[in-house]
Amino acid sequence: MKIDFLSLIRKKRDGEGLTKKEIEFFIKGLINKKIPDYQIAAFLMAIYFQGLNFEEIVNLTLAMMKSGKIFKFKGKYVIDKHSTGGVGDKVSLILTPILAALGFKIPMIAGRALGHTGGTIDKLASIPNFRTDLTYQQCKEAIKNIGFFIAEQTEELVPADRYLYSLRDATSTIESIPLIATSIMSKKLAEGINFLLLDIKTGNGAFLEKFTEAKKFAKTIIKIGKLIKKKMSVFITDMNQPLGKAVGNSLEVIEAIEFLKGKQPRDLKEIVFTFGKEILLRTKFIKSKKRAEELINKVINEGRGLRKFQETIRTQGGEEAIIENYNILPKAKYQEYYFAPQKGYIFFINTKKIGFLCNFLGGGRTKREDEVDYSVGFIFIKKLGEKVKKGEPLLEIHANDKVKLKEVKEKLKEVILIKEKKPKLPPLIYWYGRT
Amino acid sequence: MKIDFLSLIRKKRDGEGLTKKEIEFFIKGLINKKIPDYQIAAFLMAIYFQGLNFEEIVNLTLAMMKSGKIFKFKGKYVIDKHSTGGVGDKVSLILTPILAALGFKIPMIAGRALGHTGGTIDKLASIPNFRTDLTYQQCKEAIKNIGFFIAEQTEELVPADRYLYSLRDATSTIESIPLIATSIMSKKLAEGINFLLLDIKTGNGAFLEKFTEAKKFAKTIIKIGKLIKKKMSVFITDMNQPLGKAVGNSLEVIEAIEFLKGKQPRDLKEIVFTFGKEILLRTKFIKSKKRAEELINKVINEGRGLRKFQETIRTQGGEEAIIENYNILPKAKYQEYYFAPQKGYIFFINTKKIGFLCNFLGGGRTKREDEVDYSVGFIFIKKLGEKVKKGEPLLEIHANDKVKLKEVKEKLKEVILIKEKKPKLPPLIYWYGRT
Repeated sequence: MKIDFLSLIRKKRDGEGLTKKEIEFFIKGLINKKIPDYQIAAFLMAIYFQGLNFEEIVNLTLAMMKSGKIFKFKGKYVIDKHSTGGVGDKVSLILTPILAALGFKIPMIAGRALGHTGGTIDKLASIPNFRTDLTYQQCKEAIKNIGFFIAEQTEELVPADRYLYSLRDATSTIESIPLIATSIMSKKLAEGINFLLLDIKTGNGAFLEKFTEAKKFAKTIIKIGKLIKKKMSVFITDMNQPLGKAVGNSLEVIEAIEFLKGKQPRDLKEIVFTFGKEILLRTKFIKSKKRAEELINKVINEGRGLRKFQETIRTQGGEEAIIENYNILPKAKYQEYYFAPQKGYIFFINTKKIGFLCNFLGGGRTKREDEVDYSVGFIFIKKLGEKVKKGEPLLEIHANDKVKLKEVKEKLKEVILIKEKKPKLPPLIYWYGRT
Repeated sequence: MKIDFLSLIRKKRDGEGLTKKEIEFFIKGLINKKIPDYQIAAFLMAIYFQGLNFEEIVNLTLAMMKSGKIFKFKGKYVIDKHSTGGVGDKVSLILTPILAALGFKIPMIAGRALGHTGGTIDKLASIPNFRTDLTYQQCKEAIKNIGFFIAEQTEELVPADRYLYSLRDATSTIESIPLIATSIMSKKLAEGINFLLLDIKTGNGAFLEKFTEAKKFAKTIIKIGKLIKKKMSVFITDMNQPLGKAVGNSLEVIEAIEFLKGKQPRDLKEIVFTFGKEILLRTKFIKSKKRAEELINKVINEGRGLRKFQETIRTQGGEEAIIENYNILPKAKYQEYYFAPQKGYIFFINTKKIGFLCNFLGGGRTKREDEVDYSVGFIFIKKLGEKVKKGEPLLEIHANDKVKLKEVKEKLKEVILIKEKKPKLPPLIYWYGRT
């Protein structure tokens, strides 16, 4: 019998596995717009509940990868770094210019905000005129000329993922391990890279809240990586509080630039350096860990990372003057402190809710068509385990709406818990594995 | 915080209950087209998996009912009969003209085909020019003039259900007990009836395959009925084989007309008479069971049921000559027998697959926009428990596509099982309850 999509929805709904042919039919139908969005949405929710088996994950990854053009680059230092998504995770904005400055080629296809988490593309889109929708040709030229680009999938680049991604974002089907895995791997495979560093976030602000889930996901990814013979390093890192201090699109761009200028919050620094060293060592760019650390510091101190970021902004049409003048970036009308309602230690931060509060202020989407307000967000002054006095500012809220600002302050009481007792701090890095 | 639909999808996905306000937000957003189809589809699939609690069912039923106009009719004999859906279930087409001929008012809002089951509206739509999309005004006039109409929900009548119904049909989210319950009850409440007979099908061709599920559903319905003070009788009846002999839109219209002319297959007759008597007795139209049976026989024998059906066809713009000349109805190009591949007893009929095979021939939809081929279907010659010789015709296939016809014959080998052993026949009526 001919495949019809309705019966594939039913099969998946009933927990049956789909064949390679059926998965290819799905991706082809999606690309040719033969399958209506509402059927895809129902299918995605069925996958959310029933999952995908390992064979389905591999077949879906490959079908998605083949939905567009595939890059090929010369040289052994073609790499990428990817995070499964967190709150305040601006590592890509910092690490990739540093590596590009060292001569790495980084064809980075990145994503928009997902659920409560931020997205590299939305962050960059806060830079006036910055184009994230590069064509295949423009991407190739960027790699040739400056070794680096950060772009979203266009119609040419993994269009199937681009389409699914935005539909998942608008249907609460983001938090599906197999869908996250196929989304990441299809893009990374199409980038033509030789090495991938994957940062899997875990904790109350991550999709994979529990470490056991994160580890299962890591092992799935490594299994796929081995099967398709891709050199990879996989880290599981903490997301029980925002990484660094800023949460929100333009606020995070500023924090990234500040980092490249030398202002480096401890947690953010540890992640950037750990990943940077791993990449330098595993690609055999350098042999000693100590030399790797020195080299990264050197690139930052000489301002080469910053210049590479500036060069990228220029190449992608953005306002490069933001590097020096943050006032060119979208700025929220109101900047107000949220004060500690009692004294004690910052005991718990509901990081997922921080992400949702940022969305509520306008910093994310609730519908696919929604406009994002790039200016809103938070700047954390105190983080987990820090001692605070009653009335001391805990964070800065950036908002454009007085009513929402007030509501957020109210909500924050339940989102950030202060206790007399000092909390046990989570580790920053939980696990490491490689193909 | 303002309700946004994305967070309602997430809530339901995570198994949380929705408030009355949230459910009203959903139905209002659906009617005003503020919520895109793909979000509704994901929400429906989440309901499929997570269900609705009793409070949600009642709130959804009432919100749906209020989405359009609501009928009010004078007199105590305003009734309706409804089935949860089966294969070959044409009881409504037979019983309602009989009752209308007796003076009952029957404002019947019926549905299109659902999943593998047929729909009264699609069956009637096989009659050339028959209009099923009556306006509120036309419905009221039909009740005034002839006491009877069968129409689908228009923009005026329970539009929320109409919309959800077609979306569920195209997203494999039909088979959800709470969604079936709210769909039925919202329509029946809007009809302004004093009495409802509900026929809950169970067996391998029903949505509620297991009797325990059907009973749970029956009790839910009775609970709703009591809460809103609606007089109801609820039957659970068998769907382990098609009811009567015909499956397919125009083929079932012909079987209904033949029944009204006196040609009455045993199982179909038992259901029609049981329900008819129940309605006559519970509405106190008549007092004795025996008299009720005589009355129904009299209406049929005098041709009054047939004339009422003809009157309805005329009133709704259809070609009334079909009553005498079946050739006016859509007719399939190919009519071929399927022969018994071995001797023995008809031991098992996969009734759901019979429905899907009818869809495969063109008799149902796989996408909302699909055209239905009214002519295709099956006429059963042998039914469960009957003895057959090898090579004896078991059923007649009506098809318009040679290739599909061949495929159907191949598939039927697994759909109808013949064994040496005589099967234990299921009862026709399993359970009865009332408010």
